[in-house]
Amino acid sequence: MSSSQTIKYLLPEESLPRHWYNIQADLPQPAPPPLDPGTGLPLPPEALEPLFAKALIEQEMTRERDIEIPSEVRDVLRQWRPSPLFRARRLEAALDTPAKIYYKYEGVSPTGSHKPNSAVPQAFYNKVEGIRRLTTETGAGQWGSSLAFACGVFGLECEVYMVRVSYDQKPYRRALIETFGAEVIASPSECTASGREALARDPHTPGSLGIAISEAVERAAQRDDTHYALGSVLNHVLLHQTVIGIESLAQLEMAGDYPDVVVGCTGGGSNFAGLAFPFLGRKLRGGEDLRVVAVEPEACPSLTKGPYAYDFGDTAKLTPLVKMHTLGSSFIPPGFHSGGLRYHGMAPLISFVHHLGLMEAQGLPQLECFAAGVTFAKAEGILPAPEATHAVAGAIREAMRCKLEGRAETILFNLCGHGHFDMQAYINYHAGKLQDYAYPEQEIAMALAGLPAIPQSAG
Amino acid sequence: MSSSQTIKYLLPEESLPRHWYNIQADLPQPAPPPLDPGTGLPLPPEALEPLFAKALIEQEMTRERDIEIPSEVRDVLRQWRPSPLFRARRLEAALDTPAKIYYKYEGVSPTGSHKPNSAVPQAFYNKVEGIRRLTTETGAGQWGSSLAFACGVFGLECEVYMVRVSYDQKPYRRALIETFGAEVIASPSECTASGREALARDPHTPGSLGIAISEAVERAAQRDDTHYALGSVLNHVLLHQTVIGIESLAQLEMAGDYPDVVVGCTGGGSNFAGLAFPFLGRKLRGGEDLRVVAVEPEACPSLTKGPYAYDFGDTAKLTPLVKMHTLGSSFIPPGFHSGGLRYHGMAPLISFVHHLGLMEAQGLPQLECFAAGVTFAKAEGILPAPEATHAVAGAIREAMRCKLEGRAETILFNLCGHGHFDMQAYINYHAGKLQDYAYPEQEIAMALAGLPAIPQSAG
Repeated sequence: MSSSQTIKYLLPEESLPRHWYNIQADLPQPAPPPLDPGTGLPLPPEALEPLFAKALIEQEMTRERDIEIPSEVRDVLRQWRPSPLFRARRLEAALDTPAKIYYKYEGVSPTGSHKPNSAVPQAFYNKVEGIRRLTTETGAGQWGSSLAFACGVFGLECEVYMVRVSYDQKPYRRALIETFGAEVIASPSECTASGREALARDPHTPGSLGIAISEAVERAAQRDDTHYALGSVLNHVLLHQTVIGIESLAQLEMAGDYPDVVVGCTGGGSNFAGLAFPFLGRKLRGGEDLRVVAVEPEACPSLTKGPYAYDFGDTAKLTPLVKMHTLGSSFIPPGFHSGGLRYHGMAPLISFVHHLGLMEAQGLPQLECFAAGVTFAKAEGILPAPEATHAVAGAIREAMRCKLEGRAETILFNLCGHGHFDMQAYINYHAGKLQDYAYPEQEIAMALAGLPAIPQSAG
Repeated sequence: MSSSQTIKYLLPEESLPRHWYNIQADLPQPAPPPLDPGTGLPLPPEALEPLFAKALIEQEMTRERDIEIPSEVRDVLRQWRPSPLFRARRLEAALDTPAKIYYKYEGVSPTGSHKPNSAVPQAFYNKVEGIRRLTTETGAGQWGSSLAFACGVFGLECEVYMVRVSYDQKPYRRALIETFGAEVIASPSECTASGREALARDPHTPGSLGIAISEAVERAAQRDDTHYALGSVLNHVLLHQTVIGIESLAQLEMAGDYPDVVVGCTGGGSNFAGLAFPFLGRKLRGGEDLRVVAVEPEACPSLTKGPYAYDFGDTAKLTPLVKMHTLGSSFIPPGFHSGGLRYHGMAPLISFVHHLGLMEAQGLPQLECFAAGVTFAKAEGILPAPEATHAVAGAIREAMRCKLEGRAETILFNLCGHGHFDMQAYINYHAGKLQDYAYPEQEIAMALAGLPAIPQSAG
């Protein structure tokens, strides 16, 4: 009988990070600023105040390296943080690879993913500034349930625009959001001008994160006591997620190891950045070299197929222009089973890091990802969320490369959430009902044709 | 803004218990032995060998106090153990109670409940003794998925008879079991004589744990390379669960506190015993006094309404006779939403402890339990399994009593699992579709009339 069991590296609670890490401090040049779509000029911070708390706008703009985490936020995070880091020895044995595979597990949070890491500070800062309600969008429902939880903790109301295809496919995630006391609206909805417009274009649209963002932004802009919260993409969201990588650094030190390659899945990019940026920052400051690999769905390939260009963050073009890898803000991906990875763009900071040549990206097909998820579940006992299976599949690819090359490299990946609310996807997979989606070439070409023309030079 | 956040007490991994605690060592007299139904005489240990590993039979019979946990078992348990103990300060605030409420959270295990605590050693001992396959029954699916996980870890095959009503209500839990590589059969099935008999009596039966046990036992008895595994009720299962209480004792010491009352939900009784027995043992050895309260569904009230009598553990009367609180082995409870609490009997050790006057029991209606579950989820961010809501409701009753009496008592309860696979029950609850079931008086009377007559004097 093998004694090679999964090993857990758990930090004491005192090791809960006291600061978030801001990679902007260590990049060789400043990232291109967000632009006012009317003037093409850099957006003044005040322009964001109808939507965001001042503290969050500051975090969005600053190049300071270490941003203090308020004690009130740490007091909530410590319910599940520091989260465990595991050495996947049973998976290594199943793959018969010489590689050492570690995974950081964010599924231990109240809502089962990394999302509360940012939901909690966003709710906190808004509460402090006197806001009474937050609106948001959600794809897979991970973010919606997390913001609902965080609003509950701080006594805020919460209104969640849920992408139609997820609303229909995931009634259980919706029920969780409602149990936490938030209101859930299928997007596109009749509640907003952008929703009505989207429905007029296509009454049977599956919806998209881009449309849901438009709706949530529109609602927040209408009311003084209401702000908007975004679950990924923005600098401050990526910042909040860096607790993942900061803890992982300390945990790998416990293990006496350091990664040769760090892998994460990317939708908007926050869980990937949360893990990778603290490692990249160390490298940028002269520390250990390593590879950083983002894995995205082949069917929504912003990093691998989208140009690096100024674009809107939402479909109705209500947001500022941000420079990012984008498939065009009108792109609606096919209805594959990773609702959290269906955003048309990529976080500007990740896009910039990619543009600087500091990381790699690859697009993987859905079936390979689910197969990897099942392999992982059998070996490690944890069922990954469909989004997280992309990171698992990327890590398994690296492990199999190590096997071919006979190299005992160290692989670290982010298991950003469990799949307990995604069992229908697994049932469909087991029943052979899932398919790989062809690269949506025409749809992307059409969406890219609509990229805003004027300010592309500004970056 | 309140700074009263949930507090976590986490033990370092070195504190993973090295021994299980056997309450039989501290009881004032030996528990009544299991009997051979044919002779009415105490069952010789060898009689259990067609079904169980010898090491488990020894654990079933011994009165030794501390039983060493094999290092191979600890190596698997440490993936999620020691599990966290939380002080529910947000719940205390929501209830406005002077009581201090602690909960031990077993939902951090791979399958989301306490069940792997026993599945892992059971799979281990069988593997060591050369067994190739385990059969079992499952109600809510918590035990089936846990044994499937444990069999996967040790390379055993696994065959799970799942109570029909759960098989139909919980396709997602079934998919999890299958993802771990086990085979799931709806019970009653056509695969066994006892299954065929049950179907002949009622082709539309919702099934019961009693029937599913008969099927699994029958299958195991047919093959030399196959044993049977039970997820609750038996002494060795309760023993394996005592890691819960042993850790809680150490965690409360960290907190500088000690419970006035310990609350757990009871189906077969293993999670309750796992938490309560180490505390009771301490009291029996002259330690601190405390109350111990078992909470069961009003609709399946073995402890509160069943006599303490010798009965069969299964419907087909294939098991030995055990002395326990029982509703009669032919009792089939109504189809309420806590599949794990639908067993006709109660663990013989718990029944004996209750008979000795060392604990209390109460039956609660389903709607009160779901309401408690929602209150808890809103406050603490964790959605309890329907089974666990009984413990939550029991703890809330104690907290409200403290409020009435103005007493700052310390309450400890076991949150034995999360409800991620039980969202349909919550959806039905939110939609007002759940009802309280009347006490099934007639059905219980009929089932009790069938109690085996002869050996009742033997205990």
